[in-house]
Amino acid sequence: MARRSEKLDFPVSQVRRYLEPGPIVMVSSALDDRRNIMTMGWHTMMEFTPSLIGCVIAGANYSFDLVCKSRECVINLPTTTLIDTVVGVGNTTGAEVDKFERFGLTAQSATRVKAPLIVECHANFECRLVDDALVDKYNFFVFEVVKAHVAKSPRHPETLHYTGDGVFMVAGKIISRRRLFRPELLDT
Amino acid sequence: MARRSEKLDFPVSQVRRYLEPGPIVMVSSALDDRRNIMTMGWHTMMEFTPSLIGCVIAGANYSFDLVCKSRECVINLPTTTLIDTVVGVGNTTGAEVDKFERFGLTAQSATRVKAPLIVECHANFECRLVDDALVDKYNFFVFEVVKAHVAKSPRHPETLHYTGDGVFMVAGKIISRRRLFRPELLDT
Repeated sequence: MARRSEKLDFPVSQVRRYLEPGPIVMVSSALDDRRNIMTMGWHTMMEFTPSLIGCVIAGANYSFDLVCKSRECVINLPTTTLIDTVVGVGNTTGAEVDKFERFGLTAQSATRVKAPLIVECHANFECRLVDDALVDKYNFFVFEVVKAHVAKSPRHPETLHYTGDGVFMVAGKIISRRRLFRPELLDT
Repeated sequence: MARRSEKLDFPVSQVRRYLEPGPIVMVSSALDDRRNIMTMGWHTMMEFTPSLIGCVIAGANYSFDLVCKSRECVINLPTTTLIDTVVGVGNTTGAEVDKFERFGLTAQSATRVKAPLIVECHANFECRLVDDALVDKYNFFVFEVVKAHVAKSPRHPETLHYTGDGVFMVAGKIISRRRLFRPELLDT
């Protein structure tokens, strides 16, 4: 189940390649001797530079307190092979179990934050909370990605996209329409 | 290319089925005698009830002024068959062309807002702007879905998920893990 491929530093201004398609992600956090993982489907890119991500972390989550107080997290991108881990993480609470141990996930020290990376995920985005103006009203957090790690291949891994009700869509097939784009809308 | 199937009223509290997977959408708007369509990939669910969607509409878009002043829009969900229309809409500006005419799209009157529905899309979500607190800083809008229309079938249409650089992922294949979910996390 575990997927381990070498990861490279990745430009934080380009994390939209992995997050804009809307995959389910796993958020890891830590505070003092506590750590946790939660699944998250409610997130959006907000800016390229600085690299901003907006997301909802409901107050009922064990992670809410860890993220609010540490003001940090790591957003980890699982691929389809991790589906049962994703479901397990989403159906347990960090108040009762250490999810790294329960699901055989490997915590690795991050570079810029204290929250751990999840080694088995395809990509890891180290994040700092930069705006909590909408946390009280909507549990909506704005994070800056301060460091990104991405597996060398594949360029576009197969990812899980949650529809609710226990059902995921899988995205993997790629269609390029680069030839139809205005040059200024392309990366290079 | 055009896809026309009968649409039914859909519970606004369940629009996450279509939006949480993170598809590219087309936003239609209107103000006085102007109307426009833009593509949008930066959006997230924020709440079930009221049904809230947060999204980024950059100030450079012709639609920005229409949405800010009318405080309304329709979020339309295209399926994969509309890929060349999506690309065309994203690579032209409403300052120069009427995109409904240019791309052969059919505008239909909405029920609760003045912005038009795009008939050819699988689903149409009529939205009212409910929070503009983060518009100045991030061009981030919080909309409430006040009315939803969804084609009778299929339940999970094949959708487009933008990665940047002219490349889309396609999501369509479905995996259910309902049996592994805690009952309170399921719809029924």
